[in-house]
Amino acid sequence: MSRLVMKFGGTSVANIERIRSVALRVKREVDSGRQVAVVVSAMSGKTNELVGWCKELSALHDWREYDLVVSSGELVTSGLLAIALQTLGVPARSWAGWQLPIKTTDMHGSAAIQEVVTDSLLACLDKGEVAVIAGFQGVASDGRVSTLGRGGSDTSAVAVAAALKAERCDIYTDVDGVYTTDPRIVPRAKKIPKIAYEEMLELASVGAKVLQTRSVELAMIHKVPVQVLSSFTDVPGTMVVDEDEIVEKQLVSGIAYSKDEAKLTLIRVPDKPGVAAAIYGPLADGGVNVDMIVQNTSEDGKSTDMTFTVGRAEFERALHIVEKNREAIGFHKLATDTNVSKISVVGVGMRTHAGVAAMMFRTLAEKGINIQVISTSEIKISVLIAADYTELAVRALHTAYGLDG
Amino acid sequence: MSRLVMKFGGTSVANIERIRSVALRVKREVDSGRQVAVVVSAMSGKTNELVGWCKELSALHDWREYDLVVSSGELVTSGLLAIALQTLGVPARSWAGWQLPIKTTDMHGSAAIQEVVTDSLLACLDKGEVAVIAGFQGVASDGRVSTLGRGGSDTSAVAVAAALKAERCDIYTDVDGVYTTDPRIVPRAKKIPKIAYEEMLELASVGAKVLQTRSVELAMIHKVPVQVLSSFTDVPGTMVVDEDEIVEKQLVSGIAYSKDEAKLTLIRVPDKPGVAAAIYGPLADGGVNVDMIVQNTSEDGKSTDMTFTVGRAEFERALHIVEKNREAIGFHKLATDTNVSKISVVGVGMRTHAGVAAMMFRTLAEKGINIQVISTSEIKISVLIAADYTELAVRALHTAYGLDG
Repeated sequence: MSRLVMKFGGTSVANIERIRSVALRVKREVDSGRQVAVVVSAMSGKTNELVGWCKELSALHDWREYDLVVSSGELVTSGLLAIALQTLGVPARSWAGWQLPIKTTDMHGSAAIQEVVTDSLLACLDKGEVAVIAGFQGVASDGRVSTLGRGGSDTSAVAVAAALKAERCDIYTDVDGVYTTDPRIVPRAKKIPKIAYEEMLELASVGAKVLQTRSVELAMIHKVPVQVLSSFTDVPGTMVVDEDEIVEKQLVSGIAYSKDEAKLTLIRVPDKPGVAAAIYGPLADGGVNVDMIVQNTSEDGKSTDMTFTVGRAEFERALHIVEKNREAIGFHKLATDTNVSKISVVGVGMRTHAGVAAMMFRTLAEKGINIQVISTSEIKISVLIAADYTELAVRALHTAYGLDG
Repeated sequence: MSRLVMKFGGTSVANIERIRSVALRVKREVDSGRQVAVVVSAMSGKTNELVGWCKELSALHDWREYDLVVSSGELVTSGLLAIALQTLGVPARSWAGWQLPIKTTDMHGSAAIQEVVTDSLLACLDKGEVAVIAGFQGVASDGRVSTLGRGGSDTSAVAVAAALKAERCDIYTDVDGVYTTDPRIVPRAKKIPKIAYEEMLELASVGAKVLQTRSVELAMIHKVPVQVLSSFTDVPGTMVVDEDEIVEKQLVSGIAYSKDEAKLTLIRVPDKPGVAAAIYGPLADGGVNVDMIVQNTSEDGKSTDMTFTVGRAEFERALHIVEKNREAIGFHKLATDTNVSKISVVGVGMRTHAGVAAMMFRTLAEKGINIQVISTSEIKISVLIAADYTELAVRALHTAYGLDG
């Protein structure tokens, strides 16, 4: 029997009326003869409220306690959706992360899923029940609740889909697909019908916040077809699939931006082996995701500057860790800037076409936008600019690459 | 080392500021050299919100799902209080019901605690950590979360105190003790310094909502001294202790009332063996707590009327069960009244003094209040009256028994 995983984000379960309408959508899939597992987020706003309380109590709170607190919102929606389904005559039961269990690493606050134990889950589905799984959470090796980091419910959904060998993982959200860029900034942005995992990955990692990065990685590894679609309309969404399944490849698929960036520059770090490790080792141990890293060639052979960026939410943690390791690293001064944006152009077409980067730099130069940092990958070019120019840059690039609809 | 259990109700943890002040109170006890376990309720209003959502989805919701939903509020406060304690330099960790675990019966929605497994708890205390336990919840034999019914955190606290052989269980609430009656109705009500378990039990069961009934039963069985006190002041509260420890016994200790009563009368049930079982068996199976039961002698030897009361929250469930068993019971008509109050006078002194009941009936008669139903126990007399007369009755009785301060 074919299996489907459906995931509903915070706005899709924001109140009782919407939970009822989610139940109707689930019922439709059940009626079509599929086994269905549903993964739910917390009602929109709830997780922020819970995170806010933890932060209010302590900027450097115990992440194990944080996890217990912030994972509670998903328990609420999973129970409520199970009730809503039962009310429609659809057998259903809720599953907390620790009940399946979904086993994770011990990195509380941003744990990674190690295993979705499927015994109870399969028994539940085979009984004809819809399994309503609390997203965003699991249980660490010490038996304590863990969470997967913001947007982690997407990852829960894909991990469940992979474990169940589901035919598809449908991610219901408040947008009806993946666009060439943010339609709020560029009204002529177009919906992309099919996009490659790699492209989606780059778009997600640079701030097109439709899917959590790790969920796309996981989908790519396990070749789980993921559909991004809206829970408020009935139009088809964007299918995230293997590159080979996309016939007409675009040079550039989309322009992404992220305003939630913070830049840290360590001025005059010694130019000798082991310095990078001394900086990024402690950051990794502290669970800080470093994004861009730029190190220029040393002029004098003695010292160099090291710049890196982190998400703004992790800025204080990163700062704390760097300051604590000041002596071990041996830098002269620390300069920070939390008023920067990252702009990226993404497309698998770049692999075979030259001049994509040059067009980006020319376009930004024509608008008088200064590029602070450049970073590239096989299918992405990212630049850091002053946050004020974000919208201008995105619009200009969208036009330059011929993406305007 | 002496052990203390402290329990904080919803108003005591209503926001971050109050959670901080609770942490200070806990720290004071830790600093005095005690091992401390804390049991917390959900932030005030949270549980009602969660219960409301379940009811909005379905009046006859799955109680296992209800339990997952409504138990989440206590997880939040236990994590937050642990963070608040750590911020003060007090080692602390949170415990969900399923983590200790606190094992309960399978009666979801109003489960009873069967065992507080103390292995991890003792290890935690012996490490010098404060154990912050989510109240109101446990885990049933099927591994699903269970809740103990409204006010269940009191029971959690006393059960933990009994399991830990704690010297005392301090229940912090929004009142500073147990009064001779509700001070909102009778401004001259006095705080009772010491009260017997039995008296507290009768007061709790008739609506003096300071402690959950089951918590007092449990305290009585295990002889756990319980103190009721306010988290907003520093004055001593009311000690609930063994009758033998009270030197000056009052004739009547207090007047209690409950407006949340509903009355069901089964008119003309057959006067034959097995009828009461046919009525109350299914109600018990359905988890409905029947309170007063009155059956008069049959006039004609063929049929009689049966009246019973339940909490108003359980009224619809009771009605549903009685209607469903209509044929098996064989009653003629069902009359209901949700506009009744129960008024009770309570005191261990009644055991040795006559005339306590007579004074109650005379006092109510003088005020022109009609008594609908009478029920008595060794240390309590309760009557059911029209809800409109509640305040008048309580004030008159408070004066009549010489309780005015």
